[in-house]
Amino acid sequence: MLNTGRTARRLESYVQGGWHAGRGEGRPIANAATGATHAFISSEGIDFGAALDWGRKVGGAALRRHTIHERALMLKAIGQKLMEMKDEFHAESLATGATPRDAWPDIEGGIGTMLTFASKARRELPNARVLTEGAVEPLSRDGSFAGQHILTPLRGVAVHINAFNFPVWGMLEKIAPALIAGMPCLVKPASQTAYLTELVMRRMLEMEILPEGALQLICGGAGDLLDHVTGQDAVTFTGSAHTGRKLRTHPAIVANSTRFTMEADSLNAAILGPDAGPGTPEFDLFIREVQQEMISKAGQKCTAIRRVLVPAQHEQAVIEALSGRLSKIVIGLPDDAAARMGALVSLEDRDSLRGKIAEILGEGEIVFGDPDRVTLVSGDAANGAFISPVLLRSSDPMRATIPHEVEAFGPVATIMAYDGMDQAIELAKKGKGSLVSSVFTNDPDIAVEAVIGVASFHGRVMIGNRDSAKSSTGHGAPLAPLVHGGPGRAGGGEEMGGMRGVKHFMQRTAVQGSPRLLSVVTGQWIDGAPTRADRHPFRKSLAELRLGDQILTEARTVTKEDVEHFAEFTGDTFYAHMDSDAAKANPFFEDRVAHGYLIASFAAGLFVEPNPGPVLANYGVDNLRFLTPVYFGDSLRVRLTCKQINPRENAVYGEVRWDSRVTNQRGELVAEYDVLTMVAKTWPVTA
Amino acid sequence: MLNTGRTARRLESYVQGGWHAGRGEGRPIANAATGATHAFISSEGIDFGAALDWGRKVGGAALRRHTIHERALMLKAIGQKLMEMKDEFHAESLATGATPRDAWPDIEGGIGTMLTFASKARRELPNARVLTEGAVEPLSRDGSFAGQHILTPLRGVAVHINAFNFPVWGMLEKIAPALIAGMPCLVKPASQTAYLTELVMRRMLEMEILPEGALQLICGGAGDLLDHVTGQDAVTFTGSAHTGRKLRTHPAIVANSTRFTMEADSLNAAILGPDAGPGTPEFDLFIREVQQEMISKAGQKCTAIRRVLVPAQHEQAVIEALSGRLSKIVIGLPDDAAARMGALVSLEDRDSLRGKIAEILGEGEIVFGDPDRVTLVSGDAANGAFISPVLLRSSDPMRATIPHEVEAFGPVATIMAYDGMDQAIELAKKGKGSLVSSVFTNDPDIAVEAVIGVASFHGRVMIGNRDSAKSSTGHGAPLAPLVHGGPGRAGGGEEMGGMRGVKHFMQRTAVQGSPRLLSVVTGQWIDGAPTRADRHPFRKSLAELRLGDQILTEARTVTKEDVEHFAEFTGDTFYAHMDSDAAKANPFFEDRVAHGYLIASFAAGLFVEPNPGPVLANYGVDNLRFLTPVYFGDSLRVRLTCKQINPRENAVYGEVRWDSRVTNQRGELVAEYDVLTMVAKTWPVTA
Repeated sequence: MLNTGRTARRLESYVQGGWHAGRGEGRPIANAATGATHAFISSEGIDFGAALDWGRKVGGAALRRHTIHERALMLKAIGQKLMEMKDEFHAESLATGATPRDAWPDIEGGIGTMLTFASKARRELPNARVLTEGAVEPLSRDGSFAGQHILTPLRGVAVHINAFNFPVWGMLEKIAPALIAGMPCLVKPASQTAYLTELVMRRMLEMEILPEGALQLICGGAGDLLDHVTGQDAVTFTGSAHTGRKLRTHPAIVANSTRFTMEADSLNAAILGPDAGPGTPEFDLFIREVQQEMISKAGQKCTAIRRVLVPAQHEQAVIEALSGRLSKIVIGLPDDAAARMGALVSLEDRDSLRGKIAEILGEGEIVFGDPDRVTLVSGDAANGAFISPVLLRSSDPMRATIPHEVEAFGPVATIMAYDGMDQAIELAKKGKGSLVSSVFTNDPDIAVEAVIGVASFHGRVMIGNRDSAKSSTGHGAPLAPLVHGGPGRAGGGEEMGGMRGVKHFMQRTAVQGSPRLLSVVTGQWIDGAPTRADRHPFRKSLAELRLGDQILTEARTVTKEDVEHFAEFTGDTFYAHMDSDAAKANPFFEDRVAHGYLIASFAAGLFVEPNPGPVLANYGVDNLRFLTPVYFGDSLRVRLTCKQINPRENAVYGEVRWDSRVTNQRGELVAEYDVLTMVAKTWPVTA
Repeated sequence: MLNTGRTARRLESYVQGGWHAGRGEGRPIANAATGATHAFISSEGIDFGAALDWGRKVGGAALRRHTIHERALMLKAIGQKLMEMKDEFHAESLATGATPRDAWPDIEGGIGTMLTFASKARRELPNARVLTEGAVEPLSRDGSFAGQHILTPLRGVAVHINAFNFPVWGMLEKIAPALIAGMPCLVKPASQTAYLTELVMRRMLEMEILPEGALQLICGGAGDLLDHVTGQDAVTFTGSAHTGRKLRTHPAIVANSTRFTMEADSLNAAILGPDAGPGTPEFDLFIREVQQEMISKAGQKCTAIRRVLVPAQHEQAVIEALSGRLSKIVIGLPDDAAARMGALVSLEDRDSLRGKIAEILGEGEIVFGDPDRVTLVSGDAANGAFISPVLLRSSDPMRATIPHEVEAFGPVATIMAYDGMDQAIELAKKGKGSLVSSVFTNDPDIAVEAVIGVASFHGRVMIGNRDSAKSSTGHGAPLAPLVHGGPGRAGGGEEMGGMRGVKHFMQRTAVQGSPRLLSVVTGQWIDGAPTRADRHPFRKSLAELRLGDQILTEARTVTKEDVEHFAEFTGDTFYAHMDSDAAKANPFFEDRVAHGYLIASFAAGLFVEPNPGPVLANYGVDNLRFLTPVYFGDSLRVRLTCKQINPRENAVYGEVRWDSRVTNQRGELVAEYDVLTMVAKTWPVTA
């Protein structure tokens, strides 16, 4: 039972279909801001191997019975309900030390990320169980053997070992793509803030929207969990590089080549462009962004700016501007409306942070703040993990190593002066791979130089300038449509990135075979696969239409009069259609040619069925290519074949993609393209 | 100096711009078929750290100065010259024990793979230094902040640690995508057959087509090579799982999250469908394929069929058919035209293979062949590593573990009887991840069940049936356009797969910023970026045209007469254009609407420039979407903007992609699409 009151509650794990408290009393977890015991946690006695098996057998099988759109709709429903419950989550979040404003990216941001995945999946992926990727690859001259890549969900469990700083977002941004892919998840939050993850998980499970086994939770230590992973599981880890290295070299992960995604230490840089001196909008943006990244979540963000790269001539101005702003930051209890910054997650983390600052001081100095003294508007620094923002300055950043390598996970950043863009880029790269860097400039040349210069060391690079001052989502915010993760020190992982994130939980397989058999496997008609030409396919609703349904039209001759009439009617009097000499001078044509749009229009005239029927609309055309010029007197016919059928959930219709090939009297391919239509599920339409 | 004569030659490494023999005499490498010493190999004294630095600094910088098409053209030139030299490579290849027929996939196959990459890169990728991937992601409501993924080459060296069995293909299939990506390579072939790799590398370097530093070679042990890798290097490994595990957990690879791609043990299965009994074409194909995979390269292929899954009722027939064919295989010296199968790569490998067979015999029996006796048409089994094909039979495959886990790397396969497709799929999955499996069936239902059932355990699945009997490239052949690599035991790596393979050597980075700055970074005009509307952009050659060059056309009203005339002229009398009641009954329309093709045709009439000029042809349209219905009286205008410019190497023109947006009198977006044109580099055209 969940006790949402103020007394410490016992966290539970959800495994094998039930909530289980671990053995023993459990380890106490303190409220970050007050020091009071907030919860007890233990996973002792949980059978991790059995939990993984349960996920694979019960959850995986159930998820795979659904289509991608069905799974996405489940997440949409969950996300919407979670959003209604956000006040409860915010209340619980106070114990993490984060102010409500700082909890927003975690709670609303996490739920929003889940909703974005649910929406993008239905927009960008077909309503299918198997995805195809890329073009059909012809593998034989006669067309009787071809290849196509498909993506299918891994048959294991996605194990998410998450960090303490985003107990909600960290869970939702990973389970959303995994569940859409069709993979069950086992979430193992960091103990410091597991109470909030547990609360959200509890609410999700109470909704009973996802099938049993799709979600499991372990509150407490991971025990021998990883001993049980196979090559079909996937492990994601967010946390320290030290722990990450241990997990990456875990014998089971190594032996089974288990997919392992890591997001670890990152010494993110923000570069002030040489053009962006004091007085420019970019200078002000830069100062605001650095300050914001230092204090948001008390700097406990993997994406926070740790290294502040500034032109040497502006170093003093940056120090002054930043110190001025930082001195105004009010620190106190997270539920104190006056407080702009709350506490670190724990006293232990504060101790560790002080140690990191001391390390960096070996190659630098403090220019603002004192790690050992903090002024509070409420709360007390003996029991709550409060700390002052600390701005450091590296004395010789080009030679230093510590400030490029030691991640001080708190409201701490180091100023580094550079001399010329080459140095700025070198400094950014000394982080040896980061999640994100940003460059503040209004100069396109500097933007190109900086972004291309550092790109291969980063998963994300943000350009800040006056144009996007109000709309920018900022240096620190990972976004669902963009990849999150960086090479090298940042762990080498990649998350999100829109539908790329879904594919992380699927296996790519090249399937080869004859068009007939390949077609049934991929759910996509392929040239050479069987066709059916009984009734006009436009007379068939989705209930009747099958892949391969085809119409081969009569031929129509394109005359000089047609071309001239079309030119006059549309106004398209491009010389290649009108002027024989100019057309002959063109490297592609031997004489005047018909308009491409005329060919496509005549083609439609040939294949269309005029009577009211289940085809509701032509909503587009894809990959139209004009392959052979059409000269006067050429005779065209069209072969239109049903290629892909994508019924919409919650609609009376679905999308049908038609393979369209226009050939001339010599059988040469004149044009090929996909015609996109909306087709009713039944005819007449019944809602 | 290369000694191509019959006396043993000293192999050299090519590092830091020169050929270097390692210290000492070097280890002797025997001719696989005769036992005579063929070469000496040593990498002692080579400075591996310096070689990596040289590659990064000299090779990487030089490669990145070229565009993707330029790099692809270099590979095309190299591939064409290598193909002319193939006889020399075949002569050297005889020492590996492979017959010329078996060397074909290595030599011609390897060069062909390189040529395929060179050709696909120019067809499928832009002629640029930076690639964009996916759509522009809008990140703000007002359009002032957006994101786009780019791909840039890693700033390190691609280190390829290759296996002995494909000394040419193994090198070329990996350096081709890496070099196209812009990454220099360091190749470390397996010592057993390094002489052939060294010969091909020597010929490539003599061509002086690639810039210095783009290619390096280490003949001999890898020493402390991996101690020097960083997060910007990429390591690929093909070989044993045992070595692979050691490399994957190498401290520098772990600490730097170095990209590590592994292709290791794989217990590939071939499944005979329950429908494919004796007398069917699929049965015959299956028998031929299994036999072929057993003896091709004496079974020393990572993709060879190791597990022969057959319906229990056909087991005896399969054993008899296979034994019959295997008994006819003539074994002898690779240059003996009578020999169908040559030798294993070394006596040591033969010893090891015999050990593996003995292991498997713990859970099975021999049904054909004797590991200790072989009949030869030429050569002798005391000095040459000859072995007979050996067909094993698993006594209880569902309970067995050894035949699913022990890779007998030679002409060895194990028959496993199954009872029903569920069992066949379970058996295939007991390999715990393989490079490839195949299923031989003419039944679509069985094809779907088998392929989808095993897909997530495989990088490739081949369906064999009568339709593709003659054209199939076979179970064992990895192909440049398809991914090669499998999950789990197979190493979890992925190679090739067409342009996917190029991306393995690039970093994906999400770039965010205002359209103006984002556009200059990505080299692609983005809505909201600056535009220029001086002359009609169709009057500009590539020399004059710039991203953002734009024309905003006059408006044109679409009348009822226009629609009816277009319908009559084209024959497209679809009811939504012609029948008011039917249109109103349609969920998408409020009344009769204009044809989509009419909208696109009128749009062209509005933006086209009629006079002869640098725009040579409209060769296609991409991503056309009709977003708002056009009713009678609506007035349309077009905004056409130069979005992407892709000059062709070796041509007087290039591709230009135009962003086309059609709006109505209310400013609503009616249609959007990309117009694809060919535009001359200069005007008038000068060759």
